[in-house]
Order: sequence, then structure tokens, then C-alpha cells
Amino acid sequence: MISESNLDYSPEHIARLAAAAMFERDRAAQSLGIEIQEVRPGYARLAMRVRQDMLNGYDICHGGLIFSLADTAFAYACNSRNRATVAAGGAIEFLAPAHASDRLIAEADEQALGGRLGVYDVIVRREQGERVALFRGRSSAIRGEVIREGQPSAEARSQA
Amino acid sequence: MISESNLDYSPEHIARLAAAAMFERDRAAQSLGIEIQEVRPGYARLAMRVRQDMLNGYDICHGGLIFSLADTAFAYACNSRNRATVAAGGAIEFLAPAHASDRLIAEADEQALGGRLGVYDVIVRREQGERVALFRGRSSAIRGEVIREGQPSAEARSQA
Amino acid sequence: MISESNLDYSPEHIARLAAAAMFERDRAAQSLGIEIQEVRPGYARLAMRVRQDMLNGYDICHGGLIFSLADTAFAYACNSRNRATVAAGGAIEFLAPAHASDRLIAEADEQALGGRLGVYDVIVRREQGERVALFRGRSSAIRGEVIREGQPSAEARSQA
Amino acid sequence: MISESNLDYSPEHIARLAAAAMFERDRAAQSLGIEIQEVRPGYARLAMRVRQDMLNGYDICHGGLIFSLADTAFAYACNSRNRATVAAGGAIEFLAPAHASDRLIAEADEQALGGRLGVYDVIVRREQGERVALFRGRSSAIRGEVIREGQPSAEARSQA
Repeated sequence: MISESNLDYSPEHIARLAAAAMFERDRAAQSLGIEIQEVRPGYARLAMRVRQDMLNGYDICHGGLIFSLADTAFAYACNSRNRATVAAGGAIEFLAPAHASDRLIAEADEQALGGRLGVYDVIVRREQGERVALFRGRSSAIRGEVIREGQPSAEARSQA
Repeated sequence: MISESNLDYSPEHIARLAAAAMFERDRAAQSLGIEIQEVRPGYARLAMRVRQDMLNGYDICHGGLIFSLADTAFAYACNSRNRATVAAGGAIEFLAPAHASDRLIAEADEQALGGRLGVYDVIVRREQGERVALFRGRSSAIRGEVIREGQPSAEARSQA
Repeated sequence: MISESNLDYSPEHIARLAAAAMFERDRAAQSLGIEIQEVRPGYARLAMRVRQDMLNGYDICHGGLIFSLADTAFAYACNSRNRATVAAGGAIEFLAPAHASDRLIAEADEQALGGRLGVYDVIVRREQGERVALFRGRSSAIRGEVIREGQPSAEARSQA
Repeated sequence: MISESNLDYSPEHIARLAAAAMFERDRAAQSLGIEIQEVRPGYARLAMRVRQDMLNGYDICHGGLIFSLADTAFAYACNSRNRATVAAGGAIEFLAPAHASDRLIAEADEQALGGRLGVYDVIVRREQGERVALFRGRSSAIRGEVIREGQPSAEARSQA
């Protein structure tokens, strides 16, 4: 996704490097089939296809997995400034069900960032446009950076 | 989990039958390795072990999957009265990280039920007792029942 | 605020009539000094000045009164289609404190409306522009209309 | 409410002193007629009577003022350990309307406290027992104490 060969450490470049470093270690996002489409400072757009193993007893996508997609978009947006950041909490409103093989798009946008705390809104849509869910997440910065000199930082590797 | 051979349609029995019928078709809960430990009217207790493929870039359990466990407990509690019910939304506060191989327990308790709307609180704990997350979900009843005469109802099978 | 003398029952006109009828009986909004600046279908903008009797022990505007302003904007937006509607719940993020004599502006925008349930976002700002709070409210339609033939409806008068 | 003449600086005593110091300057709580009934470490119980000027256009207590009562209980609970603390946000579910002259009781209970962040649940009831609302608040400690040597601290007096 990202070439690290140039020296353009613009905020946009850092955002992409941080996303690539996170995603490489993000087994949950990988196993959900989430695709990182675009990451900029304070912004991320991700996609996920609803698989059979994501359906609940009503034959619609499990709300927790829609939340997982939104929460992942939030995570990539709030780590995009290269400050290691985790979710403190979030809330979701389910607007319409998603069905097997629907392709969902989640867009996360920073609403506020002050001190260590941030607020991010995520809209989850079907690829065709219909809104599926609205998510609002609250982030809390922890110690360290996501990447340092283009590599995952020690803090990010041992933050757990 | 449940023998349907007797005719004891007490609320407790119906709750267990509804849970069994839901779980049989709940591919998301199954693929997350969620175990239904106990379901009573307005209550559910579930367990899930944190697997490697549930870890995010910080090597801790992805918040979306903790939400998924809580949301599933909520779903089994709010369908326990055999009225087909889906989540309208929910909010989660993350209190402490969960790590690979932690066994998480989620307990859902009905707080309010009036008309078609309900409120449920879920506490997610490590098996050893430490609280990992607090979840509050809002349910909305849809048309139909979960089971009828001990079988999944037509409504429940086609509610999507 | 509104002349009822013409017969223009456009959605915009109905929204203004409904707001005027609600505000006339809305003693809480009146006693908080809230001013209804604009109401359109799915939208409302209100203003409130922070008074000395709105300050808490830290000499900043009590969060509950910022919530009250946001919740009021939400109420006027979700009743703007002349379907009697009450709040089912809401959440607020406090971004910055408001001080005595600050003039606060709250703008409510409909995000979703399906069946009896709606979702509305409200942004509370200082008049100078700084964001003070983000609110997200969930509405539930009840029986009846806000106004009928330009008058408060019987339902609206006795909805309690 | 509190005699400061003894030297019993137990956590319980400090909680009462902090509450008294806060309430003396809390014009919002005073003007809402809120009464501080009991404050212990991590806990507060408050009462408020619904007045005519708290009613909205549907002749029921304005949701923002129910939130204000809950938020105030939350504030007294999270400042009870004498660490100056403000609300970062909160969410409320409205369960039943409150009417003129109802006396409402709000009980706040600490659910989690780690680092600078805390989570508090508040239940608002009619005095007769029926639940009116459920609130969950998130607190963020700021610099300073509420009281020092039994007096409001300089930080608390100028925290705005």
C-alpha cells in the first residue's frame, strides 16, 4: 500500500505509514476481511464484505461486526497523526440491516481533538449508498507513537 | 442444550428454547466461538475466549469483538421472552484491555421494557473477575416470535 | 414568530407552525431563555445565553443545561414534520466549557427517520464559532400530531 | 449540612466536605432546586421536584432537566474523592415521563475509575419508585483538588 522509500514525511504520508504499520499487525481487521481504502490525518475509509459467517439468527449481519468495521475505521483515523491512541468507548445506532454479500463502506471523520481525548464520527453505508449505521467513538491517547522513522515504534509493539 | 420433549412452557423454558433456536442459526456467534451459558427471561450469560485472530495492532482484543460479545449477550436476553427483537443501538465503555487467551464472560440484564423498546445492561468481565467493558443496548421488537410450538417461527426465519 | 393568516401549508410552513405551537407551551425552554431561530423540516437552530444561574461549582455552564439546549433543538427538529414525537434518549460529548454570558447556538439535523424512530445530531457552538458539545438524540413518535389546522392538536395538549 | 469543626478527614468526611464546597458555588443546582441528600466516596443521592417551569410542550418534565439532575448526581459522585473532575460526556435513556410536582431521586454509583477517567451510572426514579431514566456518565479529572484543609481549593475556584 505504501512505499517508504521517499522522505516525504508530510502529515498525509505519516498517516499512510501509520495505517500500514497498524494493519500489518491487526489480525482482527484482517480476519474480518477489512480493506483500508484511504487514510488521511483525522480520516479513514474502510470496506468490508458481509460474509455468511457474519450473519446472526435473523439472517442479517451481526450488529457487533458492523460495530467492528466502524470501530476499525475510527482506530485508523485516530492513529493517523502518529500518536498511539486507543478507543475509550463508542456508541452506534443501527439504521438498516446489512445482508450477506453486501459490501459496507465506513468513513471516519475527526470531530474534535483536545489534549489526549478525541471524538470521531463514522458513517457505515452500503456501497450503493444506503446508510446502515451511525457510530461515534471517543479516543484516548496513550504513551508513544505508532511509527518512528517509518517503522512500528517500540511503544506500539508493546502497548498491551 | 435443551430437550424439547417435555411440555413445560414456563417462561424459563421458553427462554432456553428461544436461545437454542437462535443460536443454531447464529453463524456470527458460532464463528466467534461464543458459548451460551445461561438464558433466563431478561437475562443471558455468554463466554468467549480471545483468539489470536481477534487481536488488533496493539496486540489486545479488538474493541469491536468485545462489543460483539456484549451485543450477543444483549440479543439473547432481549429475545428471551420469545418476542422477536433486534438491536436499535448500543454504547460501550472500555475499562481494561483483554489479551490473547483471556476468557471473557458477558452478563446481560434487562433494565427496562415498555412497549416495543427495551434497555439492557451488559457487563463484560475476565473470568477471573476484572471488568473489561460496560455496554448498554436498546432493543426494538419487530413482528413475530422467535419460536412457535418449540420450533423457529416463520417470522424469525425471514425477518431480514 | 409566525403568521397563521395565510393558507400555505407547505412542509416549511407546517414546521414553523408546529414550532410556534410547541414553544408557546414549552415553559422549560422559555425559562431557560431559549430562542427559536429557525425551524425547517428535520432541522432547528436555537440560541441560549449562559446566565449566572446556569453556572456550576467550577464557574462554567452546567453540562445539563448545555444538554437541555441541545435536547430542545432536537425536539423542535423531530416535531417539525407535525408528527408528535418525544426523545427516547441521547448522548452528549462535552468539548469545551461555556462561560457566563456566552451565547450558545444549537443546530439540530435529522440523520435518519424510519418508522417511528429517528436519529438527530446537534452541534452546540459559541456564537463566535467554537464547538462546545456534540449531541446525538433518538426520537420516538407517539400518537397524534403537533398541530391540526394550524392549532395545537388535542393529542399534543394531553400527550402527558 | 456539614460541620467542619472536627478533624475526621476520613474519605466519608472528605466526600461530604467536597460536596458542601461545590454546592455552595453551584448556582445551577441551586436554581433547579436540587437537594444533596447523601454523598459518599463514589456515590451521591440527590432530589429535585418537577416545577411548572420545567415542563415542555407536552406538559411533561423537559428531558434536559432530568438529564441535569442525573448529571449533577454524577458530578457530586465523581468529585467525592476530592480530585477536581468534570464531565467528558454522558448518555441517557428516558423510560417514563415525569410530571409537575413529581419528586425525583437520582442515585449515582461509580462503576470504574482508572487514571483520570471514570464511569458512573445514575438511576433517576420517582420518589414512589418508578424508574424515569438511566444515565451513564464519563468523567475526566482535571488539575487540582475540590477542597484543601476543608476549604474550596484555589484550583476549584478558578477551574474555568
